[in-house]
Amino acid sequence: MEKKKTTIILFSGDYDKAMAAYIIANGAAAYDHEVTIFHTFWGLNALRKDEPIQTKKSFIEKMFGKMMPRGADKLGLSKMNFAGMGPKMIKEVMKKHNAMTLPQLIDMAREQDVKLIACTMTMDLLGLKEEELLDNIEYAGVAAYLADAEEGNVNLFI
Amino acid sequence: MEKKKTTIILFSGDYDKAMAAYIIANGAAAYDHEVTIFHTFWGLNALRKDEPIQTKKSFIEKMFGKMMPRGADKLGLSKMNFAGMGPKMIKEVMKKHNAMTLPQLIDMAREQDVKLIACTMTMDLLGLKEEELLDNIEYAGVAAYLADAEEGNVNLFI
Amino acid sequence: MEKKKTTIILFSGDYDKAMAAYIIANGAAAYDHEVTIFHTFWGLNALRKDEPIQTKKSFIEKMFGKMMPRGADKLGLSKMNFAGMGPKMIKEVMKKHNAMTLPQLIDMAREQDVKLIACTMTMDLLGLKEEELLDNIEYAGVAAYLADAEEGNVNLFI
Repeated sequence: MEKKKTTIILFSGDYDKAMAAYIIANGAAAYDHEVTIFHTFWGLNALRKDEPIQTKKSFIEKMFGKMMPRGADKLGLSKMNFAGMGPKMIKEVMKKHNAMTLPQLIDMAREQDVKLIACTMTMDLLGLKEEELLDNIEYAGVAAYLADAEEGNVNLFI
Repeated sequence: MEKKKTTIILFSGDYDKAMAAYIIANGAAAYDHEVTIFHTFWGLNALRKDEPIQTKKSFIEKMFGKMMPRGADKLGLSKMNFAGMGPKMIKEVMKKHNAMTLPQLIDMAREQDVKLIACTMTMDLLGLKEEELLDNIEYAGVAAYLADAEEGNVNLFI
Repeated sequence: MEKKKTTIILFSGDYDKAMAAYIIANGAAAYDHEVTIFHTFWGLNALRKDEPIQTKKSFIEKMFGKMMPRGADKLGLSKMNFAGMGPKMIKEVMKKHNAMTLPQLIDMAREQDVKLIACTMTMDLLGLKEEELLDNIEYAGVAAYLADAEEGNVNLFI
C-alpha cells in the first residue's frame, strides 16, 4: 500500500508558526506519512545556521542577511512578540512543561526522515546561500512542491 | 456513501481570520461535510469565555491570560487593527449588512455539529484551563487532528 | 482523465504572500491543473485597479477604500515592511534577478486561465465595488469555493 503524504509550505518566519509546522510534520511522520516541509520566504530563516557565515553578497543581500533572524532559535512570535519578551516567556513555559524547542523539533524531523526543502527562488531573492543553511537539506522550486502536493493527503500553507 | 470532510486548524487569534474559518466551516457543514475546527495557539482565544474565571495559575500563565483576548468578541484584526478601531469599523459594517458576528458564527457552527477541538498541548503552553473555555467542546492533540485530516477533502491552516 | 485541481484562498493583502499564491497558481496551471484563486478580505486588494474609481460609498466604506492599498503593486510585506522600505528592497532584488513582479504574475495567471474570483460577501464588508476591481474576473461566495475545493488535490489558505 502506498504511504500517505503530508506536505507543508512553511512561508512564515515566526517561532510559533514554525513550531506548529514541525509538530504537525513530526506527528505525521510518526503516523507513517511521507512528509515534506518546503521552506520559502521567511520560513527559510528556520533553516539558517546560527553562526555568521562568510559569503559574497551584494549590499541589499547583506542588509536582508543582517535583518533576518539567524536560525530557528532566533525567530520571533507572530503575536505578542513584545520586542522579544514573548519568545522568552514561551520558552520558559516550554521548559517547565518539557515541551520540545523548535531546534529540537527540527532535529527530530530529520531523524524521522522528514524531507526539508529550501526554495531556491526565494533564496535568490533574499540573498541566502547554501552554505548559510543547515547541511543535508534539499534545494528545489515550486515544481517539486507541486509534484509532492498533488499526491498529498494533508497539504498546508503555514 | 461516506461524507466528505473539511478540517481547519485555527492557529490565528485575529477576528477576521477566525471569521473566515467559521464561514468556511459553516458553509461546508451546510454542504453536508463532516467539519472539524482544531483550535491551537492564539486560535484558542476564540473559545474563551468572556467573563474572568478563577483558576490556579503560575505567574507567567497569569500574564498570558491577562494579555490575551477573552473570547471571540474581543479579538483584533490581522490588518488595520488601529488599536481596536478596525474591529469597531468592521462590526459597524457587518451590522449594516446583517452579516453574522463571530460569536454568532460560532453558535451556528455548534448547531450544525461542527466539531470544535481545543489543542491540549498549546493550552498547557499558554496556561489556559478547561473551565476558561466554552462548554461542550472537545480536547485533543495533533494525532486526533491528523486522523481527521488524512481523510479530509478540504484541509486548511488559518 | 479528469484534470487535477488546485484552489487557493488568498486572504492576505501582503505583497509577499500574494506572490507566493500566484507563483503556486502559475506553477499548477503549467502542470495542467485547473486552478482557482478565491480572493477574500485583504486579498481583494490585489485585484484593485490602481487608479481611483468614482463610486457611491458610505463614510466607513470610503475610509476603508482610502486606507487599503489600491492594487497589486501597492501591497506591503508581511515581514520587514519598514514603512514601505521592505517592498522597495524586494522589488529591487527581483529586478536584478529578472523575477516577475506581482502584477506580471497576475497577468500570467490570466493568460493561463487561472480562475480569479472575488468574494462578494467581503466586498460588501469592505465596501469594494465591481468597477474598482480588474475586469473579467468572477464574483462568487463560499459555496462556489467549496464546490471547487472538495474536488481539489491541492487546497491552500494563504
